[in-house]
Amino acid sequence: MLPKNTAERLSKIYGVLQTISKDAEYVTSKELAAVMGTTDFTIRKDIGALNIMNFGRKGYHVEELSSALGRVLQLTRPYRTCVVGLGKLGTAVLDYEAFKDAGFDIVAGFDINLNKVERLHTEIAVYHSSDLDHIVKSKSVEVAIIAVPQASAQEVATTLVANGVKAILNFSPAQIKVPKGIALYNMDFTAALRFVVSQI
Amino acid sequence: MLPKNTAERLSKIYGVLQTISKDAEYVTSKELAAVMGTTDFTIRKDIGALNIMNFGRKGYHVEELSSALGRVLQLTRPYRTCVVGLGKLGTAVLDYEAFKDAGFDIVAGFDINLNKVERLHTEIAVYHSSDLDHIVKSKSVEVAIIAVPQASAQEVATTLVANGVKAILNFSPAQIKVPKGIALYNMDFTAALRFVVSQI
Repeated sequence: MLPKNTAERLSKIYGVLQTISKDAEYVTSKELAAVMGTTDFTIRKDIGALNIMNFGRKGYHVEELSSALGRVLQLTRPYRTCVVGLGKLGTAVLDYEAFKDAGFDIVAGFDINLNKVERLHTEIAVYHSSDLDHIVKSKSVEVAIIAVPQASAQEVATTLVANGVKAILNFSPAQIKVPKGIALYNMDFTAALRFVVSQI
Repeated sequence: MLPKNTAERLSKIYGVLQTISKDAEYVTSKELAAVMGTTDFTIRKDIGALNIMNFGRKGYHVEELSSALGRVLQLTRPYRTCVVGLGKLGTAVLDYEAFKDAGFDIVAGFDINLNKVERLHTEIAVYHSSDLDHIVKSKSVEVAIIAVPQASAQEVATTLVANGVKAILNFSPAQIKVPKGIALYNMDFTAALRFVVSQI
């Protein structure tokens, strides 16, 4: 498994490569660094450590680097993904087009409010939260996005993991605990705002 | 200014301290590391580099560390903040309670759709995007959250910066460019999902 900091940066590099792959055949570490707000040294170190390709005179070959990073990041197949909690944020995430292009198939949404489940206009199958356990299992969901209120986030995470989910993206402000071997990333909006003002 | 990686981790530590400050007087680097998914060595190095306090036998004094980090991260005063783009994600962010507690006063919202601006039920003043420049200036907005579609993100960012915004949190998938001295952080949902599956 990749070190966290490296994997985080490589995931961003991978995303940048997707956006520039239509326009450019080669990209330099300097160009990548400028877009990512880091140094070209860090970029070369991160990519260099993978021993996947050399940095030639023209820079990295965009498509080769992209496909090599895809393999390293395990993005060579689609992941069955669900969204738990269909408030404003959850429904925004449910319909987030970019996920599908990136290989994340949103196969189910869940909410505790039955009216909301019935009212939602989306092509994705939505269920009441009481069905979370058996739907996650029967649909072989591997990745989950949590967008429930802080108070219920841990219980939801525990149910998800018990039914086979291997990776969780947590949008709630809760500090969720997961067993070893389960991947967790907190999208902490407040921490992000604090970080950005510390850079003023 | 703090190095980016350090500031990012310190912002998260600061958030963790807020949640545990009701329950605990002291916290160890091990406990912080467990919640943050990093090593206690990294925690001690990040906090140690600030020369703000010693790690005693009981660990860090939660309140002292919290107020010291608040100073380092420049969180000792509230920041006037706006949200541009009031789709599902933007309205979720507009009403995000935790921001206010964290010292970010959302003073305005903007959308290009006049009907949406009129229809929105929120206590926050919302305006048409054509008023972005003069409202941002007259309200002395310092921090902006961008939640517009990818195609208009750069134009919005340019207008914000031209009218005094110093820090931008970008929720759009666009790779925004800002002048030197302006802080920018990309909340890239897709990169986060890619990262989390790379850790499986």
